[in-house]
Amino acid sequence: MNVIKVSARSRTAAVAGAIAGVIRELQRAEVQAIGAGAVNQAIKAIVIAKGYLAEEDVHVICDPSFVEVDIDGQERTAVRIVVEPRA
Amino acid sequence: MNVIKVSARSRTAAVAGAIAGVIRELQRAEVQAIGAGAVNQAIKAIVIAKGYLAEEDVHVICDPSFVEVDIDGQERTAVRIVVEPRA
Repeated sequence: MNVIKVSARSRTAAVAGAIAGVIRELQRAEVQAIGAGAVNQAIKAIVIAKGYLAEEDVHVICDPSFVEVDIDGQERTAVRIVVEPRA
Repeated sequence: MNVIKVSARSRTAAVAGAIAGVIRELQRAEVQAIGAGAVNQAIKAIVIAKGYLAEEDVHVICDPSFVEVDIDGQERTAVRIVVEPRA
């Protein structure tokens, strides 16, 4: 599974397009963000992607969790958000 | 519907307890945050609440959207996150 990594400087429209594209292909996207700025960009991108997909009658929900990731040998806590169609 | 308003200085454990309590009572909570720090606290609180509720075999998902809110006469865009049991 590819993880869409979002930073505080990510463009929300670009991330939203990536999320919508992965959901169209795989019915599930994973978005990962570390830090407040990145988490905010991720959520904004998910809301935008939700709008794109709703036009195609695909209604997505989010399932956020914490994951430990290794960044340059340092363990960091990331927020991982699974986005998938509402069951 | 009461909206749980989260700021960048909100304590995640306290917000998580509020979210879990509202879901136990009403089967649905709404969390509102304005700005990156607040959105980050809101998501962290939701992940913690998700853990509390999972222990009770309640599995929640999130549905984020943008809402326009009036703050001291200024229109601001907030992130509103509905948290509810997975259908």
